Amino acid sequence: MNIDGRNHRTIWIDDDGWSVHVIDQRKLPFSLETSRLTTLVDACDAIRSMVVRGAPLIGITAAYGLCLALRVDSSDESLMHAYQTLLAARPTAINLKWALDEIVRVTRSVDPKRRSHAAYAHAALLVERDVSTNRAIGDHGLPIIERLAAQKRSAPVNILTHCNAGWLGCVDWGTALAPVYKAHDKGIPVHVFVSETRPRNQGGALTAYELGAHGVAHSLIADSAAAHFMQRRAIDLCLVGADRATAGGSVVNKIGTYGKALAARHNQIPFYVALPASTIDWTLLNGEEIPIEERDSMELTHIAVRTTNGPVLTIQIAAPGSAALNPAFDLTPADLITGLITERGIAPATQDGLSSLFRRRPIETCIKDLQLVHR
Amino acid sequence: MNIDGRNHRTIWIDDDGWSVHVIDQRKLPFSLETSRLTTLVDACDAIRSMVVRGAPLIGITAAYGLCLALRVDSSDESLMHAYQTLLAARPTAINLKWALDEIVRVTRSVDPKRRSHAAYAHAALLVERDVSTNRAIGDHGLPIIERLAAQKRSAPVNILTHCNAGWLGCVDWGTALAPVYKAHDKGIPVHVFVSETRPRNQGGALTAYELGAHGVAHSLIADSAAAHFMQRRAIDLCLVGADRATAGGSVVNKIGTYGKALAARHNQIPFYVALPASTIDWTLLNGEEIPIEERDSMELTHIAVRTTNGPVLTIQIAAPGSAALNPAFDLTPADLITGLITERGIAPATQDGLSSLFRRRPIETCIKDLQLVHR
Repeated sequence: MNIDGRNHRTIWIDDDGWSVHVIDQRKLPFSLETSRLTTLVDACDAIRSMVVRGAPLIGITAAYGLCLALRVDSSDESLMHAYQTLLAARPTAINLKWALDEIVRVTRSVDPKRRSHAAYAHAALLVERDVSTNRAIGDHGLPIIERLAAQKRSAPVNILTHCNAGWLGCVDWGTALAPVYKAHDKGIPVHVFVSETRPRNQGGALTAYELGAHGVAHSLIADSAAAHFMQRRAIDLCLVGADRATAGGSVVNKIGTYGKALAARHNQIPFYVALPASTIDWTLLNGEEIPIEERDSMELTHIAVRTTNGPVLTIQIAAPGSAALNPAFDLTPADLITGLITERGIAPATQDGLSSLFRRRPIETCIKDLQLVHR
Repeated sequence: MNIDGRNHRTIWIDDDGWSVHVIDQRKLPFSLETSRLTTLVDACDAIRSMVVRGAPLIGITAAYGLCLALRVDSSDESLMHAYQTLLAARPTAINLKWALDEIVRVTRSVDPKRRSHAAYAHAALLVERDVSTNRAIGDHGLPIIERLAAQKRSAPVNILTHCNAGWLGCVDWGTALAPVYKAHDKGIPVHVFVSETRPRNQGGALTAYELGAHGVAHSLIADSAAAHFMQRRAIDLCLVGADRATAGGSVVNKIGTYGKALAARHNQIPFYVALPASTIDWTLLNGEEIPIEERDSMELTHIAVRTTNGPVLTIQIAAPGSAALNPAFDLTPADLITGLITERGIAPATQDGLSSLFRRRPIETCIKDLQLVHR
């Protein structure tokens, strides 16, 4: 999407044809800097340290991580080592596994000499597929906003989002924000309530940044204030992304999503989750088994600030000596979700709903795939 | 309560017999400093700038603000001017009005020459009443924790609280934390989930500080994580305070309380609000009319940090140019509240429940009182 009128993506291949550039999202919103990844270790570090984040972008970065590994050593051992290393970088987002499986699928039967080439070609395909998938999510979500806009006449449609499910979490467009950009670009007045998303402030730092850079009206709120604004009828629609959805329609997303879904239900406000099919874990029905990443408690107790051209200072904000617990995701049960906006259309958040849009993949098939990959 | 084994209160009269000392809560948790209030303006500033905060402590500070004003000028005009000025300092907490009304009640019929003396004597009475009220809230709330402890055998009772409704928000003991201190002091194992409470971090800075200083086990969590921990059955009980309750049992408290009550309901976890009778606004039934204070958006977009012995730096954390909305309180409807813990016992959060504990004061009487004060 646009930054100061210029179109950007979050990840691209250098002119050298092999090294990978990503926007360093830890530097936003204050500085637009890129980071060049040249090794498997670089790709793992970028995912682990959240230089890149957002389920779809984590997947794409991991795909290029495999490419970088195969470029140096294209043996079966190298492929499997890189696969396992990247898979362990972050535990919750299923797109990571999906993208790795995609690269393994197209390279394992290829002669090692041509594996690197095949991997790069397929990663490029995944990049373009991410863009077209998100554009399609935008097209399918747009009518929801259009219907609300018709009811509200010329008043803006107020949309709550959480964390960053915008283009910064994908290659372009975003998932939850794709319908918002589509509506904005079409001249429909929208206003986005951006929930801060403690402890890493992806809402205040990334979502507010990308909406502002593209010219979309928005207001930052504390995570805790979302329920209040819903109670006061200031919010017409909730739109969030997902790190993993189950075949039954439950969704694991950034910590705080579940609470917002409860508030939406209590106040009869539609709550939609936007996600590409690659986010669906067809092996799970409810989602209680999905590992919830526990991140460093210092994300809560400290804040890192950088003075102009100076060093990064890590400053304590909580009481010294107090322990902190920092789960990064939570589970929103399917029955709290109005609908799932996918690249194939909107499905009810049920097993039948998802199956009607996507060819059903029985759990047995998925497990067989898994065994093939790990063989 | 205790800091490093020494007993403290939040507000006290200097040895000079008239000036007022308060703990400067903006300096906690990193520095325990006191501030001396000598004028009406000092008292107003302390309330407005949150040197003192918490509904009961705001009330006591306002009472002393009237004393400081009457010491200089004990006329009717001075009394009414000070009353109006203090009343406007913060809009939501009703204890502010209650404490001011108390001082006006005992001084307006007194000869101006003796008004200051009468005011100081009554303020001292309010201080002691706050302590005994909170101690009683602790005694009434304790059996809730004891019952849970009996069910959990030797495992700690996990209690979620929000913002700071501890002794730092009162003179001593606290409201929501009084039962926790009573349980802890009795040797019952408790563990408190302390929700951070953005944007001013009263949870991470004040509640974590006072629990730690008194030796109570606790863990800091992001506001958004409370619902997740309830869903995972990690929380046995929610205990919060209130800035204003209605005669019908609804409660206005720190932004984020309503969302936590929704999560507690969805997961069948008891949700209690602890409050002194002075927090009840008998003129209101549901609470939609209660003004919700809108605070400076910079509380969300910036963070103030102080380097050792250095100046306070105000650092931007949100995207430059993004607007922010910062409501400080929200309304929890009575039907989400398991019970109200008061100094007279636990009442169901209903009009009948509260009336059974307290002499019912019909709305007409309240309005008449109000007119008397303003005459």
